Amino acid sequence: MQPVAAPAWQVTRWLNSAQPLSLEGLRGRVVVVHAFQMLCPGCVSHGIPQAQRIAALFAGAPLAVIGLHTVFEHHAAMGEVALEAFVHEYRVRFPVGIDAPGPQGDPMPRTMRAYAMQGTPTTVLIDAAGRRRQQVFGVWEDLSLGAAIGALLSEQAEPAVPTAPLRGSGSGCDADGCSP
Amino acid sequence: MQPVAAPAWQVTRWLNSAQPLSLEGLRGRVVVVHAFQMLCPGCVSHGIPQAQRIAALFAGAPLAVIGLHTVFEHHAAMGEVALEAFVHEYRVRFPVGIDAPGPQGDPMPRTMRAYAMQGTPTTVLIDAAGRRRQQVFGVWEDLSLGAAIGALLSEQAEPAVPTAPLRGSGSGCDADGCSP
Amino acid sequence: MQPVAAPAWQVTRWLNSAQPLSLEGLRGRVVVVHAFQMLCPGCVSHGIPQAQRIAALFAGAPLAVIGLHTVFEHHAAMGEVALEAFVHEYRVRFPVGIDAPGPQGDPMPRTMRAYAMQGTPTTVLIDAAGRRRQQVFGVWEDLSLGAAIGALLSEQAEPAVPTAPLRGSGSGCDADGCSP
Amino acid sequence: MQPVAAPAWQVTRWLNSAQPLSLEGLRGRVVVVHAFQMLCPGCVSHGIPQAQRIAALFAGAPLAVIGLHTVFEHHAAMGEVALEAFVHEYRVRFPVGIDAPGPQGDPMPRTMRAYAMQGTPTTVLIDAAGRRRQQVFGVWEDLSLGAAIGALLSEQAEPAVPTAPLRGSGSGCDADGCSP
Repeated sequence: MQPVAAPAWQVTRWLNSAQPLSLEGLRGRVVVVHAFQMLCPGCVSHGIPQAQRIAALFAGAPLAVIGLHTVFEHHAAMGEVALEAFVHEYRVRFPVGIDAPGPQGDPMPRTMRAYAMQGTPTTVLIDAAGRRRQQVFGVWEDLSLGAAIGALLSEQAEPAVPTAPLRGSGSGCDADGCSP
Repeated sequence: MQPVAAPAWQVTRWLNSAQPLSLEGLRGRVVVVHAFQMLCPGCVSHGIPQAQRIAALFAGAPLAVIGLHTVFEHHAAMGEVALEAFVHEYRVRFPVGIDAPGPQGDPMPRTMRAYAMQGTPTTVLIDAAGRRRQQVFGVWEDLSLGAAIGALLSEQAEPAVPTAPLRGSGSGCDADGCSP
Repeated sequence: MQPVAAPAWQVTRWLNSAQPLSLEGLRGRVVVVHAFQMLCPGCVSHGIPQAQRIAALFAGAPLAVIGLHTVFEHHAAMGEVALEAFVHEYRVRFPVGIDAPGPQGDPMPRTMRAYAMQGTPTTVLIDAAGRRRQQVFGVWEDLSLGAAIGALLSEQAEPAVPTAPLRGSGSGCDADGCSP
Repeated sequence: MQPVAAPAWQVTRWLNSAQPLSLEGLRGRVVVVHAFQMLCPGCVSHGIPQAQRIAALFAGAPLAVIGLHTVFEHHAAMGEVALEAFVHEYRVRFPVGIDAPGPQGDPMPRTMRAYAMQGTPTTVLIDAAGRRRQQVFGVWEDLSLGAAIGALLSEQAEPAVPTAPLRGSGSGCDADGCSP
């Protein structure tokens, strides 16, 4: 099966972005979409911090992290004012789009419906040509998600694996002893 | 700078492998070398579990995880019998080579010296052509290491990003509610 | 300095409780008050789960865990409807009181003001006689908080340290080998 | 059932202590015994760090943390030289006794046998009068262990619950905003 174009985003408002964003406007970059609800425990404990780690780690790469607030329950509790407070308190710096409400009688918002997401958190990987390449509901482990991102970045001209030795962070043993 | 051939391994004995292993014998596979000491806290808490996650996650991929016991201190405490007990108790299943002792007066073993490792844990990525592509001393975060592995795997013919939607593990919210 | 009576709670509504709660009504029980805001990251990641662990661990002891929603910022985002959704999604089962809004011009609610809390999360320990014995702003480690609770429980007639050997949970080594 | 005197320790050598230690010599102090093996994964990941936290938290209290190296398997891998390296690398500062080998044919050392321990890690709580009050095999959660310690300390004359408000560590929200 060939990957096909990712559905367009239907967003009523963007936070952390001066102008509306679109897949067309991000062509040439790998796009990591993190669809979440601000009162979804798994999003708060896992998905949001992971999206922040991705944004920091690939800050210099042709990659964009995009949040999508896909509220399908407790709508009254997760409106715009609440989301603004959430984004502020959790220091979310990447753009966050508010998914457009569904048509009458559909609790699921429009982009969430178009992507056939099963719930939150959902992570969508879109390649530099705008094609949806992977979509995962629930916790996606860093190692596996990192590998998928690395593969998509490698399809670009730019080399993704630096050749120079790097220094990792944290603990290790060297000639001066061990740090815990 | 072009990546060059990784130095050969100088190993006195292999655990978890019926026969000696070499870079030549692993040609065509990405190789992740985890150099450790069994009494190095950072190796035990971070490096070994990470190597085990890599081995499990990429079990079906053209990738090999190789442990290298590079003892450069407390030699009397980390001999073969102790390593066997460690490998057993920590359920290490991937091959582990015992790095050959250095020449008279050098506490650092031979492969560790040949790779100019700074200490333990050290992770080395070798591509399918046997070239050293990256080497990191200390903690290498899953997301970043995953991306580097994904990039190397993508240089192979086999596609590294599955196109079908997957189900992640753990917590999320769906139509039936949220799991924590 | 002698401990003095804890200030009365000024609460507009109780969740998870059929009737209003008061310190007088809880006399004879050690009371652990967890003051939080539903959009306070440290409360969500640390304080609430800790309060849930306390409630579970001391379910059979003369001890009550009481939540107090002390909103002093982003008031519009953390109203009753939002709190109800939060309590539902995070499976908070202990009683939660909504702290009464402060007088005109004071963003801090009344109980929070009466206790001179510095922010959220704040944990307050009240003994069985209704006296405030300790109050901590920020993360209070389990080991230390546990010791304080154990001391207060010991002031009661009931013995707090079981004399029979117990079986802990999780990993260990025995005659059958080790579990990780 | 009344608590009875804890069995005497049968130790061949003490690390981190200038002279041999005994229960009699520690009378008046609560004693937390952490029985471990240096190659027991649950001891290394959970028990040793917890014992270190206890030693740090109760540094000023009438309490002693005592390690006991109770090797009942892989004896050749966990001898004195290996233990010295372990204690050094993991920065264990509290006294550690090497449990005396059992009589011919018994792989279990003598103190471990006298306490009828089931495996490692095992935590034993001994009160200030030298009586064994609790013994847990496996992981003992901080909150519960803390409560048991707090109860035993409360049996002493010294008050265990400070009355002054304290500042916890880590994240919280105050008038200046939230720290994650």
